[in-house]
Amino acid sequence: MKKGKVYLVGAGPGDPGLITVKGLACLRQADVILYDRLIDSSLLDAARPDAEKIYVGKAHGRHAKEQKEVNQLLIKKAEEGKTVVRLKGGDPFVLGRGGEEAEVLATNHIPFEVVPGVSSATAVPAYAGIPITHRRWSSSFVVVTGHEDASKSEPRIPWDKVSSGADTLICLMGLDNLAQVVLKLIHSGRATSTPVAIIQEGTTQKQRTLVGNLGNIVAQAKENRFRPPAVLVVGEVVRLRDKLRWFDNRPLWGKHILVTRARRQAHELSRLLQEHGAIPVKMPVIEISPPPTWEELNQAILNLKSYHWVIFTSVNAIEIFFQRLHALNLDARWLDGVRIGVIGPATAGALEERGLHPDCLPETYTSQGLLAELGRQDIADVIETQQVIAAD
Amino acid sequence: MKKGKVYLVGAGPGDPGLITVKGLACLRQADVILYDRLIDSSLLDAARPDAEKIYVGKAHGRHAKEQKEVNQLLIKKAEEGKTVVRLKGGDPFVLGRGGEEAEVLATNHIPFEVVPGVSSATAVPAYAGIPITHRRWSSSFVVVTGHEDASKSEPRIPWDKVSSGADTLICLMGLDNLAQVVLKLIHSGRATSTPVAIIQEGTTQKQRTLVGNLGNIVAQAKENRFRPPAVLVVGEVVRLRDKLRWFDNRPLWGKHILVTRARRQAHELSRLLQEHGAIPVKMPVIEISPPPTWEELNQAILNLKSYHWVIFTSVNAIEIFFQRLHALNLDARWLDGVRIGVIGPATAGALEERGLHPDCLPETYTSQGLLAELGRQDIADVIETQQVIAAD
Repeated sequence: MKKGKVYLVGAGPGDPGLITVKGLACLRQADVILYDRLIDSSLLDAARPDAEKIYVGKAHGRHAKEQKEVNQLLIKKAEEGKTVVRLKGGDPFVLGRGGEEAEVLATNHIPFEVVPGVSSATAVPAYAGIPITHRRWSSSFVVVTGHEDASKSEPRIPWDKVSSGADTLICLMGLDNLAQVVLKLIHSGRATSTPVAIIQEGTTQKQRTLVGNLGNIVAQAKENRFRPPAVLVVGEVVRLRDKLRWFDNRPLWGKHILVTRARRQAHELSRLLQEHGAIPVKMPVIEISPPPTWEELNQAILNLKSYHWVIFTSVNAIEIFFQRLHALNLDARWLDGVRIGVIGPATAGALEERGLHPDCLPETYTSQGLLAELGRQDIADVIETQQVIAAD
Repeated sequence: MKKGKVYLVGAGPGDPGLITVKGLACLRQADVILYDRLIDSSLLDAARPDAEKIYVGKAHGRHAKEQKEVNQLLIKKAEEGKTVVRLKGGDPFVLGRGGEEAEVLATNHIPFEVVPGVSSATAVPAYAGIPITHRRWSSSFVVVTGHEDASKSEPRIPWDKVSSGADTLICLMGLDNLAQVVLKLIHSGRATSTPVAIIQEGTTQKQRTLVGNLGNIVAQAKENRFRPPAVLVVGEVVRLRDKLRWFDNRPLWGKHILVTRARRQAHELSRLLQEHGAIPVKMPVIEISPPPTWEELNQAILNLKSYHWVIFTSVNAIEIFFQRLHALNLDARWLDGVRIGVIGPATAGALEERGLHPDCLPETYTSQGLLAELGRQDIADVIETQQVIAAD
């Protein structure tokens, strides 16, 4: 059997909009997705409905699946001929075991590709208003993990060198051993006055940022109950946050806002709310559901030629009407001789997508507006004899 | 006037697929785009046709526009109420003056957002098969620029500390001062045997990689005529390339392949070729163009009721037919009473998008197959009297 291919895909730092175009395309075509903790669920929603989604995340301090199991799963699924996406937080090759997984694949002659992602190391500070390099303050940065593996096979972090090895220091998993990391930096010669920021759940709607210095950050983090996942940034660039904040000071920041539209129509409003910093809570109070029987609509459609007008009062109405038309083995041609009215431009657009142009679009997009417009069409007699299908 | 918003967008390292979903969305809605050198032209193609695209790239050693001019343009366009995308290579806050631009915007009270990008620092090594961190070889990396600004306002790079500050060292613009950088690393104590890779035009179809060590890389780069833009990677992880190559060893790597389809239909084949490593060269040998006059088609459409069948032999035919239908103030209803044939499933799909279902789809998707199928429909007499419109 032809072996499947494995894509090691970086999901980005949290904001689902920060996945790459290529990464999203891989997700959409995958047969199997092995995904980590902290992957936004909307990314998984982008997958094919029949794709197999397997959680292999590492809970804090222990693994849902051991790395060996993950490796074996990758091999097994690929050998079954499946297209596999290994979806990893941030970038697969930045402190994420991606190199190890690639090695296992290479050893087993399984074709693979790497789809880099936006790393938390750069993006999380950016969302907190901190550029990790800056013409006046920093021309280099170093990235380390705060979570040193006890395993002897891993090289130990030379904190004395790392501490002053670059203008900006970024520590991923920065709360795992915050007190020790800070102590090591101070012992290596960094001043206690060095500016420090801790960013919790960066790039998401739950982002929290704490600014202090090496001398007081440990106490402050404890007092303000900062929790993983978090990124630690050390260096002069932290001072720029005051000026460059743009994400967590938007007008609706942190506000939970109910979105009551039908589930499948809630997306656009939710997106706009998020863009302004709010946390949309989807709670649909209407639901579009089929009638107990299609008999009445079927009859109306079959007798369509006896009507003068069909009025569509929503996009839903158009979708359902055309589904029924299709179910009856008919198509847009069946509307010949019937005039078509719509309630507004969105409904008109849905109609145009089906090759039809509305004969009547009211000036105000309401039922009243539509009736007024129909009045102008001189069809009072038609309305009287109820020869109008109004569908919604 | 309401001020426009500026989006500082990272375009990623070169491969246009590595832009983020959010970055691409910003590009698509922008009124004005200020873009750098090394931005793939296909990204600019994603912009609105009426968007203003301004090149502000820095040629090697000098600037197309000085940074001050760029800053002033950003302010001017935003103050005109425009939505502005500042499209920067890699990530805007990784050695790219993004911090400076954000500061100027903040000072002028212009709303802005940062859309991080995949940095060349991580992605270019990944495309060369080099993971910058790896469980056995590297738990930290440092990123610096090889191109030190002569300006006194910029902090000087402390090479002695940087050289050993992390397991892996990545130098962007790594060829700008290669000999000096290598010398500084050796003088700071790195062994001449330390593995080094230079990756030119990484993540693009022109990617070239040179592997050596600190002792011989300068001579080798000269001998093999390596040129900017290039990324330098120093550290044990370079050794993994032998095993983890996946990009520049694909079956069609480096081959130029002519794509002769019509320009607007060449995309899918080009994409597949690129996926396998080839460089598609678009050279359309057919071109779909309008006839000298629409008279004949208009007449056929207006007399449609006198025909028994309309046969569509391509997606183009459907597009043009419906454009004409629209121009004549007609829509899909006009096809009532006429049967519809299509040549294959793609054409059928284009028809379905317009609310119509084909009455005839041949088993083999060729003109012959279609004629055979029509034969089965018992319309020999119809064909004889030429009562069929065949459009392509």
